[in-house]
Amino acid sequence: MNTSAFENYESEVRSYCRHFPTVFKQSKGSYFIDENGKKYMDFFCGAGAANYGHNNPEIKAKLIEYLQNDGIIHALDMYTTAKREFIETLEEKVLKPRNLDYKIMFPGPTGTNANEAALKLARKVKKRQNVFALMGAFHGMTLGSLSLTTDKTSRKGAGVPLTNVTFIPAPYMFPELDTVAYMQRMIDDDHSGVEKPAALFIETIQAEGGIRVFDVEWLQRVRKFCDDNDILLVVDDVQVGCCRSGDFFSFERAGIVPDIVTMSKSIGGYGMPLAITLFKPELDIWTPGEHNGTFRGNQLAFVAAKAGIEYMLNNQIEENTKKKGELVREFVEKEILPLDTRLELRGKGLIWGIEFGNIPVSGLADKVEEKCFEYGLIIEGAGRKNSVVKLMPPLTISEEELTEGLHIIKQAVKDILSAL
Amino acid sequence: MNTSAFENYESEVRSYCRHFPTVFKQSKGSYFIDENGKKYMDFFCGAGAANYGHNNPEIKAKLIEYLQNDGIIHALDMYTTAKREFIETLEEKVLKPRNLDYKIMFPGPTGTNANEAALKLARKVKKRQNVFALMGAFHGMTLGSLSLTTDKTSRKGAGVPLTNVTFIPAPYMFPELDTVAYMQRMIDDDHSGVEKPAALFIETIQAEGGIRVFDVEWLQRVRKFCDDNDILLVVDDVQVGCCRSGDFFSFERAGIVPDIVTMSKSIGGYGMPLAITLFKPELDIWTPGEHNGTFRGNQLAFVAAKAGIEYMLNNQIEENTKKKGELVREFVEKEILPLDTRLELRGKGLIWGIEFGNIPVSGLADKVEEKCFEYGLIIEGAGRKNSVVKLMPPLTISEEELTEGLHIIKQAVKDILSAL
Amino acid sequence: MNTSAFENYESEVRSYCRHFPTVFKQSKGSYFIDENGKKYMDFFCGAGAANYGHNNPEIKAKLIEYLQNDGIIHALDMYTTAKREFIETLEEKVLKPRNLDYKIMFPGPTGTNANEAALKLARKVKKRQNVFALMGAFHGMTLGSLSLTTDKTSRKGAGVPLTNVTFIPAPYMFPELDTVAYMQRMIDDDHSGVEKPAALFIETIQAEGGIRVFDVEWLQRVRKFCDDNDILLVVDDVQVGCCRSGDFFSFERAGIVPDIVTMSKSIGGYGMPLAITLFKPELDIWTPGEHNGTFRGNQLAFVAAKAGIEYMLNNQIEENTKKKGELVREFVEKEILPLDTRLELRGKGLIWGIEFGNIPVSGLADKVEEKCFEYGLIIEGAGRKNSVVKLMPPLTISEEELTEGLHIIKQAVKDILSAL
Amino acid sequence: MNTSAFENYESEVRSYCRHFPTVFKQSKGSYFIDENGKKYMDFFCGAGAANYGHNNPEIKAKLIEYLQNDGIIHALDMYTTAKREFIETLEEKVLKPRNLDYKIMFPGPTGTNANEAALKLARKVKKRQNVFALMGAFHGMTLGSLSLTTDKTSRKGAGVPLTNVTFIPAPYMFPELDTVAYMQRMIDDDHSGVEKPAALFIETIQAEGGIRVFDVEWLQRVRKFCDDNDILLVVDDVQVGCCRSGDFFSFERAGIVPDIVTMSKSIGGYGMPLAITLFKPELDIWTPGEHNGTFRGNQLAFVAAKAGIEYMLNNQIEENTKKKGELVREFVEKEILPLDTRLELRGKGLIWGIEFGNIPVSGLADKVEEKCFEYGLIIEGAGRKNSVVKLMPPLTISEEELTEGLHIIKQAVKDILSAL
Repeated sequence: MNTSAFENYESEVRSYCRHFPTVFKQSKGSYFIDENGKKYMDFFCGAGAANYGHNNPEIKAKLIEYLQNDGIIHALDMYTTAKREFIETLEEKVLKPRNLDYKIMFPGPTGTNANEAALKLARKVKKRQNVFALMGAFHGMTLGSLSLTTDKTSRKGAGVPLTNVTFIPAPYMFPELDTVAYMQRMIDDDHSGVEKPAALFIETIQAEGGIRVFDVEWLQRVRKFCDDNDILLVVDDVQVGCCRSGDFFSFERAGIVPDIVTMSKSIGGYGMPLAITLFKPELDIWTPGEHNGTFRGNQLAFVAAKAGIEYMLNNQIEENTKKKGELVREFVEKEILPLDTRLELRGKGLIWGIEFGNIPVSGLADKVEEKCFEYGLIIEGAGRKNSVVKLMPPLTISEEELTEGLHIIKQAVKDILSAL
Repeated sequence: MNTSAFENYESEVRSYCRHFPTVFKQSKGSYFIDENGKKYMDFFCGAGAANYGHNNPEIKAKLIEYLQNDGIIHALDMYTTAKREFIETLEEKVLKPRNLDYKIMFPGPTGTNANEAALKLARKVKKRQNVFALMGAFHGMTLGSLSLTTDKTSRKGAGVPLTNVTFIPAPYMFPELDTVAYMQRMIDDDHSGVEKPAALFIETIQAEGGIRVFDVEWLQRVRKFCDDNDILLVVDDVQVGCCRSGDFFSFERAGIVPDIVTMSKSIGGYGMPLAITLFKPELDIWTPGEHNGTFRGNQLAFVAAKAGIEYMLNNQIEENTKKKGELVREFVEKEILPLDTRLELRGKGLIWGIEFGNIPVSGLADKVEEKCFEYGLIIEGAGRKNSVVKLMPPLTISEEELTEGLHIIKQAVKDILSAL
Repeated sequence: MNTSAFENYESEVRSYCRHFPTVFKQSKGSYFIDENGKKYMDFFCGAGAANYGHNNPEIKAKLIEYLQNDGIIHALDMYTTAKREFIETLEEKVLKPRNLDYKIMFPGPTGTNANEAALKLARKVKKRQNVFALMGAFHGMTLGSLSLTTDKTSRKGAGVPLTNVTFIPAPYMFPELDTVAYMQRMIDDDHSGVEKPAALFIETIQAEGGIRVFDVEWLQRVRKFCDDNDILLVVDDVQVGCCRSGDFFSFERAGIVPDIVTMSKSIGGYGMPLAITLFKPELDIWTPGEHNGTFRGNQLAFVAAKAGIEYMLNNQIEENTKKKGELVREFVEKEILPLDTRLELRGKGLIWGIEFGNIPVSGLADKVEEKCFEYGLIIEGAGRKNSVVKLMPPLTISEEELTEGLHIIKQAVKDILSAL
Repeated sequence: MNTSAFENYESEVRSYCRHFPTVFKQSKGSYFIDENGKKYMDFFCGAGAANYGHNNPEIKAKLIEYLQNDGIIHALDMYTTAKREFIETLEEKVLKPRNLDYKIMFPGPTGTNANEAALKLARKVKKRQNVFALMGAFHGMTLGSLSLTTDKTSRKGAGVPLTNVTFIPAPYMFPELDTVAYMQRMIDDDHSGVEKPAALFIETIQAEGGIRVFDVEWLQRVRKFCDDNDILLVVDDVQVGCCRSGDFFSFERAGIVPDIVTMSKSIGGYGMPLAITLFKPELDIWTPGEHNGTFRGNQLAFVAAKAGIEYMLNNQIEENTKKKGELVREFVEKEILPLDTRLELRGKGLIWGIEFGNIPVSGLADKVEEKCFEYGLIIEGAGRKNSVVKLMPPLTISEEELTEGLHIIKQAVKDILSAL
């Protein structure tokens, strides 16, 4: 394995390569292939960026054709045919059928860009500086998004105080506390010390926070809380959007309409950088260029994104994701949870977490993931103290592959628990 | 022209499309082609993202081959062959020949990401919170980079105070003031009110600030100032790197070595999102994952980036850029400046600005750009009150094309000035 | 009543004068006397600054003598005999008998100064920027103290974001929530988003927050929480110190020792500006002059402060305060609470609050206070939406006077409630 | 000398006591007397708090009478006869004769309080967050004022970043730079990075900055700059007001009217805590109690303050201060400057600085001050690296005493320079 170029020249900040120590060369469907030809099943999925499978052939064909035809690659935010087609597809096939009349903003091609834009817009619209975010949240690593992100190591990296955000306990943290009533009290109490926020940022399923699925009633109450108090509800669907939860938008199951939605990762269809910020038309008070970025018009990604949406619809990805989710749930409940009564399962659609945090031995989830890699499965952790094994296969995975992957996880858990 | 999708669905934040009102479909070399088949010469160059020409055929071939072979598209920061080849090429063909032993960091694929990473690293290394930046600077639009950016409209968009940055007058602003002595006084004076900074951020040529080329002696004195005072020198080469100034790195002409260098735009070779942050090995105190981002490993861009470097070397882009730069200078000095004695020319390599700000009529540069578009040339403005017409053709432009473009500009200037 | 000088020349920021519209000329014991000779019993007590009675004759005699002898009035922080005597008295008569070995700092003669100094010192000692404070707290109006203060109107006056403070729900706000466990979770959870604080600021009885007495067990758990987590416990005893609660220090009833204690108001003995910040000797890492202020050595106040301590001890003020407190409790419980079942009584020592907030009519407490003034009693409000009538007579009040005052309040409550 | 109480119990933050190691007991006119009966002439004057002489007998008589009559001591901001008389005196005898129609605010009895109030008010009126202050400035030590203060040691004590203030070079720092044009450029340049401020804070004579007297033309241009740009001009007259400069207000010599003026120190007449913030009536948009503080109505200080103003007028303090200032200038120019050509003299009225900073030996001014103390003269330093000996006797000093003090300084300078 020739990794000396990385070790000699790449910064120590590199991270996932340390967990998956080989050099990858190709990918296809649910698999990575390393330069020695060894195949690895992928239950990590680029942290949600490869929902429609690696190198999906239908999308690939369109990309090659576009390149061959000298389609525009870079155009900042000038009008292009590729962008128009993406916008029309998103509008006609995704937004309108869901009765969503969002305006589309291209804020730069990463999730953190989408959240920075949402943050600016919310403050501009409401003329307030404070913002609410939930404990357990991850919203990105640039200074604005980082102020919304809760992981302490990441925050410390800022090197300056992260300000103008108030963190609200997530509903699972203090079960006895009604978190919506808590927020209402922050607003109503003239001695709370907490300024009324421009917006509340949430993920409907906290992924990095440990696969924490917020229930429908809570989401509906949060929507009402925001309405009642003139606060914008921002849903960060970067990781759990694009059908990951079983619906295209993760908030659909609650029947709510956020004021702002941020998306990235799989919106690009083929793993290429793209991000969008969607918002209600009445919020569109931007002046031209007030937020910008060189790659906000990543044309190749527009082509893939359009193809991704079409693929998703033609292949009933939403419906199939729900079905496969049930398969995961059943397998883990029957085959893995019984291995130790302290294990917990949480999830929705095709994002699931097996919680090892109740077993008082540190690093268990890490060990399971390491063992999986030995057995040819790429899988990562999440959650507090990284105690959750996160199952996130491509949504295109076959049932056979899925079952095979689950068996590997079972074996890995068995190995690790039996060594305690 | 069918632009209703944009007008109905895209956010008002869109901006360049308002200056170039057509729908583009293809690009090739120095040209854009709109959907009606009309060709436009490109003197804007994606704000520096298309240095090696649009859809450069040598790079294109490699991209198509990579896609066809199911090369990996998305891999976060796992090891891949595409990344290894890019790192090796950058090391062997760019850094080593220049005696630079930088570590390479992939911070997310946009310039603002590269600057956010530089900002975090500088503060972490020096354990100081303040940072110096120059008036006239542009470093990005996410909250950390935005705190370094000087344009007031952009800053206002933050919606919160932008803190922990001290702005230093650029040397051209107060010619009587020695700006290096000014910075030294900020440090030495125990009553300056200014905290010693972790770093000084500069562009060696301020592009957005109005094509302001800092002279070699000033750059050398700045390097010495940073050395003498234990301050990191960060050069933002996002816009003027990748040979734009005539050298691969814009600071080469001064014979200085910055502590940190940020690059994006043309580093991706083909207009695809990529960014790198380079720094001296002793600064590499990151912990794994302390700064991250989903698209920090944009594999297709690695392929193009490697091919871009090779193309650049094989075609003597540096040398040719300098030559073509002389052509621009001579033409403008002989043909355009005489049109009005108040016009000024500033620039280096293939980034030039014609300053209209000394003529007391507002909006002249805008009008010249508009007129150029009528004549089939895409060109943009820069500088204070947008008073500078910025000439930034692809570095691959032929002398004939270049001359043709310059003639268009001349005609446009003539038209506008004669209408005064 | 000649108030035109105030109306014409004094700023609109003046406030209490609007509730007590007369011009006062003299004060004595429990009374104010206006320029028409009308006497008003004082149940407001300068918000706690006149604990030992107005113009206490024993203290007065010492002040006059000191002035007559040309004792030093102003000396910054030079050594003076007056300061030495105050320090020795505080040490020998207050601190040592309580086994407290605090260092004494003179931070400027106001409560807000004492809290600003505590804030600086805590951050300096712990090298952390965040600080915890409780919802409902009042700690002062200068920018640092204001960042710890919860009242929204006051906070808005800052005109800039108030940062680097995390507010913790007070224990009475969400009875179902264990607030100490909440704070522990903020520290332990690596995804809380909340930085570990340098200190926790509390009042043991929130006065402005609505006369909220924290119970002994909670105070003890808070002390343990701070010990366990290397966090400084700061008790702001500005309003409820100096025997107001029945003990000289309000925290004595819980048997705890804060790391830092701030005092002002009645520490000056005679209503003159003085403040002190007390802290454990190991925290005394100040460099000379690192915090200062012109009036940090208010010599006349030192004379009064020493005399005040002696008076307090000679007259068993602590013991008597507790006794009189029982008298208040009994009277209000028997005579006032029965007037409406929704009334609540809270308090300790000689600080009590009658809560009108459960009656859904706004402004009731204000009206009661206004009525009291008509009947010759000065009394003020506190709490959320100012819904609490705050009883805070001088500690030197006689039982007869106290009873008289309580009868006035009863009559006023009756009047107001009967008019509903 | 019994100083063990201080050494054992007082915080290390104590500072001036270290320079003047004795225990003072009395003061009278221009003298301090220690507990051994030794007299010290005072050229420090409580940093400007004892302009009308120590224990001025005319003021003293009024204080004793007030105490004997049980005048009110503490009344928050209720109406009192003492306050009314002070307001009327200030209006009739100080403001009206100067055609000033300021509203008077009592913000808490210290200079830092007065500046915190000015800062809040300026931001509230102009709805802007940034404020300009001058390098070399000292405005106080609480967090808001500290953000305006330039001394690095003090700033570091904040423990958090000090934000929302932009420092402007003082005119003496870069003689080649037109500082007013510099500020104008910050406003006009759309790429300065500097937000338009709510206010510009200045001292007309920087005391802590090193006795830097701003010339009349500069002050007038600053006033015009503020007018032209809708920025409030705030003059901090805490140290150099109350006739110190030769006029009651230090800005009178320039014929300008600031929008806001802050005063403390000698406004209290007798060295007792008092502060006022004056502002033009149209700025008085405070809501009642929006800024407050327990000791904002220090009644005894009102009595002294009124008596101080009367004393000042009856004794032609302004005129006499100018005369004595000439005496100082002549003496120092003739007798002290010739001792070393590198010495400089700066000052106005009765605030003068002898600059030792041009002699490349550190600590000279400190040594001169120490030597003066040996010779029975209390005098302090100021300025960059504390290189200035600051001459600030009571304004009531006799010419004989003044000459005596100057001779001591001359001898001390001689001693120290001859030992080089």
